[in-house]
Amino acid sequence: MGNDEVVLVDFDLSMFCVRVKIALAEKGVEFESRKEDLVNTKSELLLQMNPVYKMVPVLIHNGKPISESLIILEYIDEVWRDRTPLLPTDPYQRAQARFWADFVDHKVHEIGKRIWTGKIGEHEEDKKELVENLKQLEEALGDMPYFGGHTFGFVDIALIPFYKWFSSYEKIGNFKLHCPKITAWANRCLVRESVSKYVSDEKDVNDFVLSYRKLIGMD
Amino acid sequence: MGNDEVVLVDFDLSMFCVRVKIALAEKGVEFESRKEDLVNTKSELLLQMNPVYKMVPVLIHNGKPISESLIILEYIDEVWRDRTPLLPTDPYQRAQARFWADFVDHKVHEIGKRIWTGKIGEHEEDKKELVENLKQLEEALGDMPYFGGHTFGFVDIALIPFYKWFSSYEKIGNFKLHCPKITAWANRCLVRESVSKYVSDEKDVNDFVLSYRKLIGMD
Repeated sequence: MGNDEVVLVDFDLSMFCVRVKIALAEKGVEFESRKEDLVNTKSELLLQMNPVYKMVPVLIHNGKPISESLIILEYIDEVWRDRTPLLPTDPYQRAQARFWADFVDHKVHEIGKRIWTGKIGEHEEDKKELVENLKQLEEALGDMPYFGGHTFGFVDIALIPFYKWFSSYEKIGNFKLHCPKITAWANRCLVRESVSKYVSDEKDVNDFVLSYRKLIGMD
Repeated sequence: MGNDEVVLVDFDLSMFCVRVKIALAEKGVEFESRKEDLVNTKSELLLQMNPVYKMVPVLIHNGKPISESLIILEYIDEVWRDRTPLLPTDPYQRAQARFWADFVDHKVHEIGKRIWTGKIGEHEEDKKELVENLKQLEEALGDMPYFGGHTFGFVDIALIPFYKWFSSYEKIGNFKLHCPKITAWANRCLVRESVSKYVSDEKDVNDFVLSYRKLIGMD
């Protein structure tokens, strides 16, 4: 795998791009980041490489494009299988990891997005559900240091980029996310170089949220 | 694997349950179906085995529950790996298969559901998008007999249960889905015993759609 050409169609504040960068860093795979300016116009590269969704991230490995962040993580894990496994080997544990990563997409992301793009102080049901979702994630974590047990892996990579959005959810939603186990887990993740290098800064997220809300006429 | 206890928390008309039954049949795995009466009340078994979503299908393998149909298909493929592979072995082809199966969930299912549960004759944008989605699937199929190439597999299993819902989408939406390649592909799939045994009958789907629409006050 020494002559691999690995390109990431990238947007720094995308949690989905952050996932891919953490996974590549965990595997020690060098890559070239091609930054997208999603707010203004999508590049020809993005439109060509992901004609179905036209969304980042797209991983282009030796010219072949792969889209959808969790699918990209599985691909990375399968191609560079000799280094730092992301998914466990046991089929049941793999299914559990896939379940919780998918839960992050369908719950934390979807509900969080409704809150940060919605009317300030509204979305009462969504806020209750997000609090409940984080409780469910804390139960899944249990007393383990990481979601996969003792090693940082698939679900950790899927969730950690969202942690940096929590304070924006709280500000726009005018509510509090009380999740001490998730906070302790996030602090463990954030000391990893692969994570600290790529996760967004909370202030950058908040600035982006505020400017995006202006753009869509929500403020 | 001779002493496996395999139970499926099941609902006959669920496309997601049909997927799991086709996969088990392809692998030659015997299972016990526990039918749910979703319209009236969810069983204790379902609530216990899938506390997060409370949805079918749940595969219970030797007492351990797995939820979400595509995750169940991967689990089945990994546990019974010596028989009829569902996913290809090449990482890039696996990523492509996961991409299109996910596309079925996020496009065909979501948009189809908005149409069949929506107001008759409305949802013009959804109808256009569904027609476009089926074109995209036809392009992905190309001139191959199955989505995975020459052998029936993951994407075929993910999509075929929905084919039996197309005529209900058309009736409620008052539009036509013209997709000759998908139709030819479906006819190839439907001659397989694993498929013909478990896919729903179009009339049963249509009766269910009509009674469900009454229940939600749409007719």
